[in-house]
Amino acid sequence: MIYESIGATDSEWASKSYPEIQETANADGSVLVVPVGSIEQHGHHLPVATDTILVDAVVSGASEKLDDEIPHLVTPPVWSGFSPHHLPFGGTLSLDFNHLQTVLEDVAQTGLENGFDAVCFVNGHGGNASLIDAVVSTVGTSTDAEVLGTTYFTLASDEIHNLRDSDIGGMAHGGEYETSLMLHLRPELVADTDQREATAWDEHYEWGGSDLLDSGPLAVYRSFDEYSASGAIGAPELASAEKGARIYDIVTSELAAVFVAIHEHNR
Amino acid sequence: MIYESIGATDSEWASKSYPEIQETANADGSVLVVPVGSIEQHGHHLPVATDTILVDAVVSGASEKLDDEIPHLVTPPVWSGFSPHHLPFGGTLSLDFNHLQTVLEDVAQTGLENGFDAVCFVNGHGGNASLIDAVVSTVGTSTDAEVLGTTYFTLASDEIHNLRDSDIGGMAHGGEYETSLMLHLRPELVADTDQREATAWDEHYEWGGSDLLDSGPLAVYRSFDEYSASGAIGAPELASAEKGARIYDIVTSELAAVFVAIHEHNR
Amino acid sequence: MIYESIGATDSEWASKSYPEIQETANADGSVLVVPVGSIEQHGHHLPVATDTILVDAVVSGASEKLDDEIPHLVTPPVWSGFSPHHLPFGGTLSLDFNHLQTVLEDVAQTGLENGFDAVCFVNGHGGNASLIDAVVSTVGTSTDAEVLGTTYFTLASDEIHNLRDSDIGGMAHGGEYETSLMLHLRPELVADTDQREATAWDEHYEWGGSDLLDSGPLAVYRSFDEYSASGAIGAPELASAEKGARIYDIVTSELAAVFVAIHEHNR
Amino acid sequence: MIYESIGATDSEWASKSYPEIQETANADGSVLVVPVGSIEQHGHHLPVATDTILVDAVVSGASEKLDDEIPHLVTPPVWSGFSPHHLPFGGTLSLDFNHLQTVLEDVAQTGLENGFDAVCFVNGHGGNASLIDAVVSTVGTSTDAEVLGTTYFTLASDEIHNLRDSDIGGMAHGGEYETSLMLHLRPELVADTDQREATAWDEHYEWGGSDLLDSGPLAVYRSFDEYSASGAIGAPELASAEKGARIYDIVTSELAAVFVAIHEHNR
Amino acid sequence: MIYESIGATDSEWASKSYPEIQETANADGSVLVVPVGSIEQHGHHLPVATDTILVDAVVSGASEKLDDEIPHLVTPPVWSGFSPHHLPFGGTLSLDFNHLQTVLEDVAQTGLENGFDAVCFVNGHGGNASLIDAVVSTVGTSTDAEVLGTTYFTLASDEIHNLRDSDIGGMAHGGEYETSLMLHLRPELVADTDQREATAWDEHYEWGGSDLLDSGPLAVYRSFDEYSASGAIGAPELASAEKGARIYDIVTSELAAVFVAIHEHNR
Amino acid sequence: MIYESIGATDSEWASKSYPEIQETANADGSVLVVPVGSIEQHGHHLPVATDTILVDAVVSGASEKLDDEIPHLVTPPVWSGFSPHHLPFGGTLSLDFNHLQTVLEDVAQTGLENGFDAVCFVNGHGGNASLIDAVVSTVGTSTDAEVLGTTYFTLASDEIHNLRDSDIGGMAHGGEYETSLMLHLRPELVADTDQREATAWDEHYEWGGSDLLDSGPLAVYRSFDEYSASGAIGAPELASAEKGARIYDIVTSELAAVFVAIHEHNR
Repeated sequence: MIYESIGATDSEWASKSYPEIQETANADGSVLVVPVGSIEQHGHHLPVATDTILVDAVVSGASEKLDDEIPHLVTPPVWSGFSPHHLPFGGTLSLDFNHLQTVLEDVAQTGLENGFDAVCFVNGHGGNASLIDAVVSTVGTSTDAEVLGTTYFTLASDEIHNLRDSDIGGMAHGGEYETSLMLHLRPELVADTDQREATAWDEHYEWGGSDLLDSGPLAVYRSFDEYSASGAIGAPELASAEKGARIYDIVTSELAAVFVAIHEHNR
Repeated sequence: MIYESIGATDSEWASKSYPEIQETANADGSVLVVPVGSIEQHGHHLPVATDTILVDAVVSGASEKLDDEIPHLVTPPVWSGFSPHHLPFGGTLSLDFNHLQTVLEDVAQTGLENGFDAVCFVNGHGGNASLIDAVVSTVGTSTDAEVLGTTYFTLASDEIHNLRDSDIGGMAHGGEYETSLMLHLRPELVADTDQREATAWDEHYEWGGSDLLDSGPLAVYRSFDEYSASGAIGAPELASAEKGARIYDIVTSELAAVFVAIHEHNR
Repeated sequence: MIYESIGATDSEWASKSYPEIQETANADGSVLVVPVGSIEQHGHHLPVATDTILVDAVVSGASEKLDDEIPHLVTPPVWSGFSPHHLPFGGTLSLDFNHLQTVLEDVAQTGLENGFDAVCFVNGHGGNASLIDAVVSTVGTSTDAEVLGTTYFTLASDEIHNLRDSDIGGMAHGGEYETSLMLHLRPELVADTDQREATAWDEHYEWGGSDLLDSGPLAVYRSFDEYSASGAIGAPELASAEKGARIYDIVTSELAAVFVAIHEHNR
Repeated sequence: MIYESIGATDSEWASKSYPEIQETANADGSVLVVPVGSIEQHGHHLPVATDTILVDAVVSGASEKLDDEIPHLVTPPVWSGFSPHHLPFGGTLSLDFNHLQTVLEDVAQTGLENGFDAVCFVNGHGGNASLIDAVVSTVGTSTDAEVLGTTYFTLASDEIHNLRDSDIGGMAHGGEYETSLMLHLRPELVADTDQREATAWDEHYEWGGSDLLDSGPLAVYRSFDEYSASGAIGAPELASAEKGARIYDIVTSELAAVFVAIHEHNR
Repeated sequence: MIYESIGATDSEWASKSYPEIQETANADGSVLVVPVGSIEQHGHHLPVATDTILVDAVVSGASEKLDDEIPHLVTPPVWSGFSPHHLPFGGTLSLDFNHLQTVLEDVAQTGLENGFDAVCFVNGHGGNASLIDAVVSTVGTSTDAEVLGTTYFTLASDEIHNLRDSDIGGMAHGGEYETSLMLHLRPELVADTDQREATAWDEHYEWGGSDLLDSGPLAVYRSFDEYSASGAIGAPELASAEKGARIYDIVTSELAAVFVAIHEHNR
Repeated sequence: MIYESIGATDSEWASKSYPEIQETANADGSVLVVPVGSIEQHGHHLPVATDTILVDAVVSGASEKLDDEIPHLVTPPVWSGFSPHHLPFGGTLSLDFNHLQTVLEDVAQTGLENGFDAVCFVNGHGGNASLIDAVVSTVGTSTDAEVLGTTYFTLASDEIHNLRDSDIGGMAHGGEYETSLMLHLRPELVADTDQREATAWDEHYEWGGSDLLDSGPLAVYRSFDEYSASGAIGAPELASAEKGARIYDIVTSELAAVFVAIHEHNR
């Protein structure tokens, strides 16, 4: 049972009765948080839900760092992302761009009906990034609440660069960053070292993205089988649970600071 | 973290790597299971995720009763349902009918690309029932795989009637059936007895639905505030954990039998 | 000319001028009725419009049984249904699910603009049943009028069971029920006995539907060529005009009672 | 019962079994005809189904003039048109432009699957005219069959002008042309002379349309309450059953000639 | 740079700052003009942007003939049309019917937000004609402003007929009319005489369109490779710059008169 | 006439005949370029078409720097963008997100039908940036050609930072960057110095975007009247034609290098 864990954190929308939800929503400076992940191939060594597991953990971790005074609720993570570029490998459950867009719009709009002062999408999948920006705009035009969105691994990128062992290209899809976080958070779901096959992200164009932390000014569509035989990209061999713990601490602190700022700005 | 529990059961799509998923999908008579729930008000005594928690538990329970020989995988539950009739109470995250339809179509279609011989939607929310039937048709026309769908509480209705203490109208939205299951499965999420306010489902028309187990030939649209002041309908005061255990056993056994039959028919 | 018959019954929207329509719509407890049929293959012995002919006749018959005091109007039957499962046989004019959905929504919404207190869809095609339920919800959320829907052959099912000669599986697509009604109402459109080829509805799954009057808790998508070589399913050889007359009387009386109840509830 | 009249003409799709339909469809030079009408206010003296009644009669009349050698079938008339400009008067059941578009596309495309060599939409409502042209294009790009469309009252306009008694502006919505046809075909549905209130079509712009037979190069959107207090436009006082008979003969002959030409061109 | 010419005429929306636009929009009887062209093959002798170049020139010319007192602004021409029938030749950038429809709706609706009293679409591509009519209706239902539309070459058709040298069929796609205008306005973009290959528009059906100025009552879908080997239809060999100058003068005068009439009617 | 300038550069799709277009498209390593701009308020000192003028100029300039050997064509700029956040000021013609998305998809897909090996969208409006990324994905999944996209002012940002005189916040909407380019390219469209009112881009959140060249990891929806009274943001008072010339040279060189790289990679 996946949903056995509902109620594990205090900020879960799912575990509340509706009067409890409305009480939080009506508090001053209340913030609704919508995590968005993906189910897509992550090479031979990581489970397909990696993006959803990580964004859920990061949002939960940030939420736990918040003071009780900050009224906020977190919806369950939207676990279906926009991942057509991963379909050739299998293991991927992908929504069409516009279908996922309407899901996020509907979740935010019916959530906001409860009286929240702001909604923040927190995304965990690179392929969703432009969609999140799109939805920030389309939801933004339909509400008086403040609407925000971020892709969590773009936060605190300077600090992350400082602790990385890989070159640019190593923190990518199933690489040093994600594998470290998974080794810290869910080691039992990470395959043994000998299965951590990946290639560095080697985008042909110098202007293209080539690292989770270096997106570049030129977007290029590539099915991931152009980049990698295994489906993974980056340097998982440099991953460690210890590094994962440090990344987790940095990112959850930064995201908590974002939530505090939203609360402060909307009270 | 909600997703801490991923990997708890052997049939979870989310916890696998893509090669593992494809191995199951390519086995003879493989079955893809898509649970569909809802996040909507359930009165003062149940969490809004009740439908999702229950459908997840029922599918997991059925899956655990299956022999290893039956290749199948279960996607994470789609937790967003079609619940416009609950919006007036708050606590509800509802998708438009057609938006949820495309989500289920996309999940099934990209899932089936892996090679499954059948897909079965298992629904846990009455308001989704016609949508599930719709999607069985629209996905069915697009694939050679067998496409099926059921709303779990319509299974084994004779046996359930035998164990109920309430009259017709008592197994409804947050009533004897759902509250018993929640007391068995997640008692810590059920409010104390004194908060279990509900009214019996008293549909004006004799042809209309008036119980989870008695849907009737006449569909009537009613915002739930026409039925109930608290949002709950039925007889939660007759619920017990023991009854929940018996319902759970009956329904999971029946659903397991459905899965076996699908496997047998498609091998 | 099909439309030569407009005006044959007093309740036809089509034969009225707009001031007459508005007079009825504005009366207390006024009911708008929208029959929905289908044009699809019905084996070798029945015309493709069977579902539309029958739902039109049943609604007209019910309407004629009503007291003058019950203000109501009947739109022309929507003759195009959702029938992808019949397309392989030919003779079928089918709309996509969502296209038919918008037709019913638009007809109901522009009809309700005249001031009716309720709208009731009456459906005559099994393949439309979930769509009717869907539209009851989507129209219901958009209006203050009461919105209802039924599939006529699910009404009075106990009485129908009592008069049937076929086993379960015999009242199906072009079987005992529909062929009897057609022999009563439109015998000149029914082919001779030797063309009434059909097979009993033999759904593999015990939980699946296997009779017009026994739909079962498991939906399965099947192109009808999986069930039948001729396109017809059921026991047309057991049909008779006399039985058709009895079915017609039972169903029209029951439907008339539904209309009366709607009127009473909304005045 | 409206559908009592099905089978009255030999070319009706609705009255056939599917093997009969396929036999016609597979004949050389076969033509599928789709009549399209409307249900909309037509002043105080004509029923709201006037456009549907007339297009149905005109198509049936043309069909009856055809030689047996011309294989063709006529679907039931699509009775729901695009009529937002009539909604303020009531009595109108209107589909959104794009919803009606998909209906016509689906009907034509599923009809053509049977093997017809051509499909011809015959329209009876001015407000549908651009939509028919649109659908001729969109269906045309999706099939190898020939796709055509016409609005029947634009046929044989020279001959019609010769017999009219009204000036330009008199053959309009519920005017001399339509009222004459109705007096010929369905006099019992036409109100007495003293209810035939209408105003001549007096479009402000000289380039705008101002008669059924004079559409002009400038399209102007006008809700019909800008033109007329009663809803009718034209000169119904000049209508006569005799003139209706002559119009009917001219138009059905011309339309029959169109059908023959399509047959000849596609055999 | 294409947009180097912005600002060449006084009525260009594009060259204004927003306060200037609002000043014009708020003047009495203000008119918004939206030219709509196409990019599609025009035979070997004309550029693919011919329809856009011509509609832009015609609207600019009409605008220049207007008195300063007539407040109006012209949006940039929508250069993408509905041209599936030209795709087989290449050189064509075509939008789907409904996609172009939404573009015109959005441009008109956001433009009208500034306070214009009327909007007039001026179209330069035959394939867009029904779409323009459609949009006049759909925008018309959404605004209190007056909504109009015309295809410029249908204006002043009597005068144009008087000056033509070709028979019917010669003023068509890349024929005498368009080639003359291009020789007058943009001779450097017209290929030499020996490349002006075309065939007369020879539509099989007498009721079909066979000239820019003779559209006929029967719409037929034809990919243009059914009409012409080169892609051009008509009599370009009869074109001349002098004739183009006369056509230009006639059409711009007529269109200016339309704009004046709109202004007068809406002040 | 805007379209008087067609043919001014050698790479314009619009000025070619279709055989010329196909010749280029079929050359080895051919590149289709689609500029995308916007028409939206740009304060009191810049015309509403600024984004379209600039992206057109930048693409034309880059194209002119290319060797003849690089086969490429440039479509006319799509001048309608996604600009809901500018609507409150007026002067803005904005498409809905999904409507603009389909325009770009249709233009790219019908353009690619000619045989190009790659398509590159070049965007000039910040509000379009996520939409461009979206379309790169959706078009990318539908074609074998390479699909790319960039927002031109994100290119060469290091060099641009070196020449700026404003602090972060000064190169924004109608600020130092855009005003300088306009003073270089179209000085006659720039209002006098005393009308160059703007405020520095002062986004509340430190993670939010606050400069054309500094977008930040947090997306926030803001109607532009939250940022500025005049509609302009940045430091137009620091703009100069000379700086504009330098920016233009840097950006066109960089974009030309992108085009060369695409050509090289796809030959």
